[in-house]
Amino acid sequence: MRNLNQDTITEAVLARFENTPDPRLKQIITSLVTHLHDFARDVKLTEEEWFYGIQYLTATGHKCTDVRQEFILLSDVLGLSMLTIAMNQDKPAGCTEPTVFGPFFLENAPHFELGADVSNGASGQKCLVRGQVKGLGGEPVKGAKLNVWQADDDGKYDVQYENLSQPQARGILNADDQGHFHFTTILAEAYPIPTDGPVGTLLNATKRHPWRPAHLHFMVEAPGYERLITHVFRDHDKYLDSDAVFGVRQSLVTDWVQQADGTYLMEYDFVLNPQR
Amino acid sequence: MRNLNQDTITEAVLARFENTPDPRLKQIITSLVTHLHDFARDVKLTEEEWFYGIQYLTATGHKCTDVRQEFILLSDVLGLSMLTIAMNQDKPAGCTEPTVFGPFFLENAPHFELGADVSNGASGQKCLVRGQVKGLGGEPVKGAKLNVWQADDDGKYDVQYENLSQPQARGILNADDQGHFHFTTILAEAYPIPTDGPVGTLLNATKRHPWRPAHLHFMVEAPGYERLITHVFRDHDKYLDSDAVFGVRQSLVTDWVQQADGTYLMEYDFVLNPQR
Repeated sequence: MRNLNQDTITEAVLARFENTPDPRLKQIITSLVTHLHDFARDVKLTEEEWFYGIQYLTATGHKCTDVRQEFILLSDVLGLSMLTIAMNQDKPAGCTEPTVFGPFFLENAPHFELGADVSNGASGQKCLVRGQVKGLGGEPVKGAKLNVWQADDDGKYDVQYENLSQPQARGILNADDQGHFHFTTILAEAYPIPTDGPVGTLLNATKRHPWRPAHLHFMVEAPGYERLITHVFRDHDKYLDSDAVFGVRQSLVTDWVQQADGTYLMEYDFVLNPQR
Repeated sequence: MRNLNQDTITEAVLARFENTPDPRLKQIITSLVTHLHDFARDVKLTEEEWFYGIQYLTATGHKCTDVRQEFILLSDVLGLSMLTIAMNQDKPAGCTEPTVFGPFFLENAPHFELGADVSNGASGQKCLVRGQVKGLGGEPVKGAKLNVWQADDDGKYDVQYENLSQPQARGILNADDQGHFHFTTILAEAYPIPTDGPVGTLLNATKRHPWRPAHLHFMVEAPGYERLITHVFRDHDKYLDSDAVFGVRQSLVTDWVQQADGTYLMEYDFVLNPQR
């Protein structure tokens, strides 16, 4: 195993992984090495480009903190996140469709009572959200746990502000005995994903816009059902057909209706798949 | 561009890169997205595996510091570094072959006079190194700059020790008017690449050994010539045929001869390619 060249090295590397005990890991690493090498050969990667790639990945890692996940953002804009979700989306027809998780979820969001204002001081127009969590058979899902999070009208999630004393526009609620939920928040607006890191450098160099259509994130969980991670999108948003992270599903788009008093109302029901 | 599925998303992502101004960047990103998606489809990546990958890359980034480059190490053990070097290795026959850069190069190593002891207190058996830097036509390369670095007999580079007050077993020397150089250092020994990070996790899970055959790193530079990044390996090392980073070239292997007084002598001449 000396003097490997560009035609022999891939087989040599794969041979080195021959003794991987876990068959799934072996399958993944074999495919990964094959595609990685094929990519490098396809473009005849130069040493300078290789080093730029090393620096790019390093900067992406350094941008990641407890409240910022630049690798998820990179996966999102390269369509890998949505591809992974699509491949694993084998829920029966009638279930609410999932979409990307995004980089701004926070563990341990504050709990709220039904009817509360989860905006918690975030700026934006007032919006009432209500709906019901149901199972695939139409049964109400009693006490379903809803984790909601969103950006404010300046396009920023709370974690993007430095030194904010408390979480804003995010929270956990439990549906009532009939699976019904309602809470107040602020109106979701279209916003650009963060462009102050390596993902922004990529979008800028490739002349891609960073905008996402207005949406509200939901993670819905209940015993006996599969966890649902999704958004509800606002109809008529001009970015619905060019979402920077490829996450829009028509079934998740609904009209957010302005009321006589100027506030908004968004109604959406979630249908969960029973645990398999 | 809504409701993308696993069969339609790749085209949609590539279309989004359609307006990339730089044709080379467009070529690279197109190939990268295609291979990345093909990889995910080939193995039918699950959401849990995707998230493990996100966490793995994040941990790899967080392991990178001014003196540790875990992404280079990952590229090395996946054979990508050596593939890149092999593809770009089109120097004429007779030139010294390059090999991997490795993760332990340091900018601004200390300068030494010819004949000095660059070990600077690093532990190991004494070894004299000498040779000549020549051009492809056989001409001596006057004053060629040699950057050398190596591990000590405990298998560690200076940067792997915390709180070391000065660089050890690394330095910069200039060849004399005839391209000749000589210096004292410590005998290179086989050593394991660092396994305390994500690369170690990968090697462990795949039952790969982390060892590299004994070698001394050289970066050789001179005006009018292409920069050479290479190693000289010690013959008879038991890892020459299973180098963890696939870097061994037979032309870079030489006998390091033990002298009557117990010290070692390593002689090697470098042949540089004229600048193109």
